[in-house]
Amino acid sequence: MCFTIKEPEVDDEVTGEREAYMASVLARYRRSLIERTKHHLGYPYNLDFDYGALAQLQHFSINNLGDPFIESNYGVHSRQFEVGVLDWFARLWELEKNEYWGYITNCGTEGNLHGILVGREVFPDGILYASKESHYSVFKAARMYRMECAKVDTLISGEIDCIDFKAKLLQNKERPAVINVNIGTTVKGAVDDLDMVIQTLEENGFKGRFYIHCDGALFGLMMPFVKRAPKVTFKKPIGSVSVSGHKFVGCPMPCGVQITRLKHINVLSSNVEYLASRDATIMGSRNGHAPIFLWYTLNRKGYRGFQKEVQKCLRNAHYLKDRLREAGIGVMLNELSSTVVFERPKDEEFVRRWQLACEGNIAHVVVMPNVNIDKLDSFLEELSQKRSCWYQDGKMSPPCMAADIGQENCFCVLHKK
Amino acid sequence: MCFTIKEPEVDDEVTGEREAYMASVLARYRRSLIERTKHHLGYPYNLDFDYGALAQLQHFSINNLGDPFIESNYGVHSRQFEVGVLDWFARLWELEKNEYWGYITNCGTEGNLHGILVGREVFPDGILYASKESHYSVFKAARMYRMECAKVDTLISGEIDCIDFKAKLLQNKERPAVINVNIGTTVKGAVDDLDMVIQTLEENGFKGRFYIHCDGALFGLMMPFVKRAPKVTFKKPIGSVSVSGHKFVGCPMPCGVQITRLKHINVLSSNVEYLASRDATIMGSRNGHAPIFLWYTLNRKGYRGFQKEVQKCLRNAHYLKDRLREAGIGVMLNELSSTVVFERPKDEEFVRRWQLACEGNIAHVVVMPNVNIDKLDSFLEELSQKRSCWYQDGKMSPPCMAADIGQENCFCVLHKK
Repeated sequence: MCFTIKEPEVDDEVTGEREAYMASVLARYRRSLIERTKHHLGYPYNLDFDYGALAQLQHFSINNLGDPFIESNYGVHSRQFEVGVLDWFARLWELEKNEYWGYITNCGTEGNLHGILVGREVFPDGILYASKESHYSVFKAARMYRMECAKVDTLISGEIDCIDFKAKLLQNKERPAVINVNIGTTVKGAVDDLDMVIQTLEENGFKGRFYIHCDGALFGLMMPFVKRAPKVTFKKPIGSVSVSGHKFVGCPMPCGVQITRLKHINVLSSNVEYLASRDATIMGSRNGHAPIFLWYTLNRKGYRGFQKEVQKCLRNAHYLKDRLREAGIGVMLNELSSTVVFERPKDEEFVRRWQLACEGNIAHVVVMPNVNIDKLDSFLEELSQKRSCWYQDGKMSPPCMAADIGQENCFCVLHKK
Repeated sequence: MCFTIKEPEVDDEVTGEREAYMASVLARYRRSLIERTKHHLGYPYNLDFDYGALAQLQHFSINNLGDPFIESNYGVHSRQFEVGVLDWFARLWELEKNEYWGYITNCGTEGNLHGILVGREVFPDGILYASKESHYSVFKAARMYRMECAKVDTLISGEIDCIDFKAKLLQNKERPAVINVNIGTTVKGAVDDLDMVIQTLEENGFKGRFYIHCDGALFGLMMPFVKRAPKVTFKKPIGSVSVSGHKFVGCPMPCGVQITRLKHINVLSSNVEYLASRDATIMGSRNGHAPIFLWYTLNRKGYRGFQKEVQKCLRNAHYLKDRLREAGIGVMLNELSSTVVFERPKDEEFVRRWQLACEGNIAHVVVMPNVNIDKLDSFLEELSQKRSCWYQDGKMSPPCMAADIGQENCFCVLHKK
């Protein structure tokens, strides 16, 4: 489906037909957005926000060219908001104001591209290590940057398997390591054990010869508010952390936050007089609205507000898990995570209706602040109704997920107790 | 300057202080945006747009994940607008619907990163050739992608010097060529002679062994509407064209359009089941609002509307050039261009006030649709007033620009007739 662009007729301004056509397309589109927003469960986007107070800013072409910390001649920017947001995140991840550098990116992928590029510039000969459940942008980066890449096995939970990591490291003892650590994998919401990754590196002769990028796309902003969660902090020997802004915070368009150590950035940057600004970002021109959206939400909610929302999400994720299990559906929920993994629904229409993300035999729901009990209930009801149709005649049975989420979580014919 | 984020007080909701503080920051910021938008001349952004009809869409998290032509499970997208916009551009650059691929990027830099990456994947052993006046993102791409890069000399106009290009080609006859062709350089608005670039390649044994990316950041969208302008078209052996959306069209945030040949994309893409979509873009998550802004303006203005605006810009650029010359100020304006290059004002405060882009001894004004005669007059008046102060005592004199824009355009003490 495509809304074709048509050349205006000469008399369009008189008849008003063009305006009417466009208004009708937009009205229909808006209705579909409302419906699609209502039935959304699979992607980790917080769809619950109200930026009405910022609507006035849409009239301006706000562009943060180049480095957030160096003034450019272009005056219509939002650097003052961007730096405010960056300071907040640097504080969250415990890096001093005069020791960090960062910027607001266009999305989680840009954060990963940036972090891995910094790692490569610090260790040009480095090999990229990432668990096979890492986001696909990590492997894209390896290809773009012409880096050798070693895929590391994962545990059933989705975490990196440090025994395999060690084995892979020992195959390339002479070359430095650039490591992507997942703070919440895309599919299972698994958190790699950062401390064990560091320990593995140091115990195997890599001390001072590694760079760790933490891909915190979703959980990078949730974990700090979970009691007992292992800490992502620059007090540990990590090089960069990225997190998405449109995920837990919620934002009309994708965006992200990238924080790294200032000392690494000098490796990357080169002076570009045109902008009156050095350029250590991936994109030169950057969306100036995104930092204002983030600034607005961080200011309104604060640490306490996020903590409350994180707790609510974890609670609701447990509710969903319990209800699925009660209904005899195989399910897994990692500790510290709000990503509920369960059997892939048989019907693609159902998958599309609820916009579930699927891989092989599994699907997931990511419980975000806008996903409340009511929404989960109506999803559960529909699922169990559909399921009784799919599997009623006994010819078909639910798929086995033991390989994906473990025997103890699988309720297929073979593994049902 | 930075707007710090403060933790909300417990009683904030009662006192309303937080809301009041944020509202006051935003109101002050809005005033500064109005002032800065008024005094803007140096960057090629059309600041004149009215997207009031689209304000309603800001409530939605619109994300075009992955490939624009393959449906993803995430339903809150704007692919139907994106494809409409892409079709329009493919038609403009004469590539058949079933032979093109493209997407809406985050900015001109992403277009260049993409085009050059496609070129490298088509010719993994290729050397990147680009004139030294190419946008800095081209050289950034070379570094990111670990490509060998040959910087080619330019003529005084800013165009690529095909004699030097030939010499550089002959130094590496055995390796294929990936070429960045500028459709409007950043500083001088110079248009590389595409036909001569192709001829140089073919005459020197590179037939079938080159990939041309056209960086049409600004002029890519203006040239098609200028009579007698050489044509950028896929009927010539080019691989990709990129153009910015926030420049001539005008958009609240940076964005761009990337069009390439479908056959090249298969080289780049790899299947990623998670998105139910292949991924041949640089960024995986993409701003879904930008395509709607572009769609809206293209539909309203059409070819005819753009043509009118382009003519107005060229007319006003000539006006500015003539007035500067009358005032005894050295100035250059390339044919087909609305970028007026002149002496760098002595005072940095003046440069910042009018947000001029400068390099060495030269500055420029890019005459965009929002830059009318009134604005130019008030700029000219202020400039000549300031200038009479800067140079009144005769101790200082305006800088020589002969090396930048040619003796015949320079009015310094030495070259003044």
